[in-house]
Amino acid sequence: MSLKRRNMLGLYGVSAEEITTVLDTAESLREISARPIKKVPTLRGKTIVHFFYEASTRTRTSFEIAAKRLSADTVSLSASTSSLTKGETLIDTAKNLLAMSPDLIVMRHSQSGAPHLLAKHIPCSIINAGDGAHEHPSQGLLDLLTIRRAKGRLDGLKVSIIGDITHSRVARSDIIGLNTMGSQVTVYGPRTLLPPAVETLGVRVAGSMEEAVQDADVIIMLRVQQERLTDVLFPSLREYAQRFGLGLRHLKAAKPDVVIMHPGPVNRGVELAPEVADGPWSLILDQVANGVAVRMALLYLLIGPETP
Amino acid sequence: MSLKRRNMLGLYGVSAEEITTVLDTAESLREISARPIKKVPTLRGKTIVHFFYEASTRTRTSFEIAAKRLSADTVSLSASTSSLTKGETLIDTAKNLLAMSPDLIVMRHSQSGAPHLLAKHIPCSIINAGDGAHEHPSQGLLDLLTIRRAKGRLDGLKVSIIGDITHSRVARSDIIGLNTMGSQVTVYGPRTLLPPAVETLGVRVAGSMEEAVQDADVIIMLRVQQERLTDVLFPSLREYAQRFGLGLRHLKAAKPDVVIMHPGPVNRGVELAPEVADGPWSLILDQVANGVAVRMALLYLLIGPETP
Amino acid sequence: MSLKRRNMLGLYGVSAEEITTVLDTAESLREISARPIKKVPTLRGKTIVHFFYEASTRTRTSFEIAAKRLSADTVSLSASTSSLTKGETLIDTAKNLLAMSPDLIVMRHSQSGAPHLLAKHIPCSIINAGDGAHEHPSQGLLDLLTIRRAKGRLDGLKVSIIGDITHSRVARSDIIGLNTMGSQVTVYGPRTLLPPAVETLGVRVAGSMEEAVQDADVIIMLRVQQERLTDVLFPSLREYAQRFGLGLRHLKAAKPDVVIMHPGPVNRGVELAPEVADGPWSLILDQVANGVAVRMALLYLLIGPETP
Repeated sequence: MSLKRRNMLGLYGVSAEEITTVLDTAESLREISARPIKKVPTLRGKTIVHFFYEASTRTRTSFEIAAKRLSADTVSLSASTSSLTKGETLIDTAKNLLAMSPDLIVMRHSQSGAPHLLAKHIPCSIINAGDGAHEHPSQGLLDLLTIRRAKGRLDGLKVSIIGDITHSRVARSDIIGLNTMGSQVTVYGPRTLLPPAVETLGVRVAGSMEEAVQDADVIIMLRVQQERLTDVLFPSLREYAQRFGLGLRHLKAAKPDVVIMHPGPVNRGVELAPEVADGPWSLILDQVANGVAVRMALLYLLIGPETP
Repeated sequence: MSLKRRNMLGLYGVSAEEITTVLDTAESLREISARPIKKVPTLRGKTIVHFFYEASTRTRTSFEIAAKRLSADTVSLSASTSSLTKGETLIDTAKNLLAMSPDLIVMRHSQSGAPHLLAKHIPCSIINAGDGAHEHPSQGLLDLLTIRRAKGRLDGLKVSIIGDITHSRVARSDIIGLNTMGSQVTVYGPRTLLPPAVETLGVRVAGSMEEAVQDADVIIMLRVQQERLTDVLFPSLREYAQRFGLGLRHLKAAKPDVVIMHPGPVNRGVELAPEVADGPWSLILDQVANGVAVRMALLYLLIGPETP
Repeated sequence: MSLKRRNMLGLYGVSAEEITTVLDTAESLREISARPIKKVPTLRGKTIVHFFYEASTRTRTSFEIAAKRLSADTVSLSASTSSLTKGETLIDTAKNLLAMSPDLIVMRHSQSGAPHLLAKHIPCSIINAGDGAHEHPSQGLLDLLTIRRAKGRLDGLKVSIIGDITHSRVARSDIIGLNTMGSQVTVYGPRTLLPPAVETLGVRVAGSMEEAVQDADVIIMLRVQQERLTDVLFPSLREYAQRFGLGLRHLKAAKPDVVIMHPGPVNRGVELAPEVADGPWSLILDQVANGVAVRMALLYLLIGPETP
């Protein structure tokens, strides 16, 4: 199995068949992490550069663990140690990295489109690990894997995404991926944190929490970025929790077998009441485990041997 | 050989038999670091996470080298890059790490008890690499190994520990371990830096440097934390050196074959006169070498194959 | 093949024969980075410590990739996380590192002579990865490799080095290496940034850009350290670019097959006009690729098996 692409820059334009290939590959690689010896030699002698212009614990760690379980060599650069502080342009930095013959660059950047710019100029594989408010495709794919494992399918589901839609690259990748796979997405959040023409993304906009969760198979709560709240003069975290936080009372309106997801880290008592975050419907830790599997699948499909 | 425990959180409650198992294992692993190829495949495919909430060169480096000599994969997180800065609780962070299937987490934290809290909530192995002023068991064990190698035994020795006893997790682990193995510990230091009921730890309190080192087989000097000195309004480093620093003149009162230890980094001219630090009685660098061996032993015993 | 030395502290005192050994070895290791599996087991079980007291993306990354392509284990320390912040002396830190049995320490330090001091006190191999304004031998060697690959030889060439000669360890290592190999170096730059007795280095000093590039086979442009410019009250970056930057107009005076080099990162529009940096004569990215090969060669020759 392989993808007919060199990069994974976003889920926009990725076909249902390709997504299925990634998820199926992730399923088959998932059990490696449960073995006593959690390692296969598939990517031995490959060099993967983790290039993070924004701090990130969980995404970087997840990619590093994925790379090591496939026996790739990894090198980490972060903004604080990079030449960018010496005034070098992004493209110069990337060309320099490229001259060291990496096989793949995993890149996080605060500006939307940075990985796409890179991909235009350098011929090695690139995975976008989050670019500004644009896309975070490996998160989108791990969310799809988590939903498929819980529900057995990805078509005909009702998925609600609640919170700061405007600034969420997770929401964007989720919406695109879910649309491609045939599910219906409903969004809800503070009016100031919904993109102006959000319907053009192919989503339904709910008018209340009750409407948002009505008959939902899946509810994805987004993380509150406290610094954004100040930006839009949103009253307070407390009021946010009251109006847009998910509590036990909301779950009754959803399907009886509704599952709850969150990209983490959770602000307990803000987006999610603790009893919701820790209930049997919560798939938050499954998402993390699936993240390693999906990233292993992406690395394998983008730079692994042509045939498994 | 194996330990009948999953974690190494402190030496409190660890039996003499268990300590002997660790030290014997360390002895047998010690020579790996002297080989031309310093590596055995024992922990291949194991994932070890180094989770350091406090800066540390030597302990982190020692654990990383130990892990790599056993062929484990390592991932490092530090406080500055972790989600904790995003307000996530310690337990949430740990559960998230756990979902990535590490085999062992090595953790340093400024708060006493943090690794124990973690151990209650997550089922993977944990080594406490220093928690606040509480314990630092791998340092305690490497000190025991160093003494055993120098003296041939761990029972019936007179060991003096001198300096800031109150804030020293090293002192605490050393005292507990030495008591368990049957040695007698004497402590000495500024009155303001001795714990109120220090005798309950099973130690003798000396009234002067002379008394402290009298007939000592081993003297362990503790590092002066300059920031603590200010806290207790201790006059000056110079006065500290005069009253609590170890000079050549003190060694005469000790046993002729006394050995000197220090957890490092040494403040030369403060805790230790340079000629004491560099004399033939100094085991400071042996401690560092034994640190790698003891940490290899802990990793091996906690997550290695059941039988060697 | 091997070098008759344990350390690579600078090119001063390194013979033409030794330099040729390094370059020939680099040539033979260069193709490893072009293989699908970019890795050979040559340094398996060796421990390399990267000890960087100054931030560095490209040099550290280049050394790390070189080490991993030879299967060595690497551990990274940086100043911010090191015990130096706890007041330990450089030699104590080094002795402590040494007690962990590394095979080689790669060290960058802001003070000239720091790696030499280390080498006097500890018996493991050391590579100087840049010490103050003194030397940066692996950069010198990669520049020599780049020139030899482009020109087929290293003797009888005219090489111009332009910019801040005083503060450039790259310039110093380049000048020494080129002199040893039999090429003639001309330097040019702001008068305040030329060392007082620069001719004693065996170079010719040009009086103008035109004279500097006249008949040059190779032009090496140095990076402007903006903080230095302020130090010497140099008017402005703009004026620097006009008087000491290399533009297309200068190339006509050089040999028709002149090549342009720069240690990076480039300040585009300052040292180099963009059309010069990106023209067919530019070897800037070749330098980066050759950097990995030269560092692999140094690691191999200093700590590899005696015979290939």
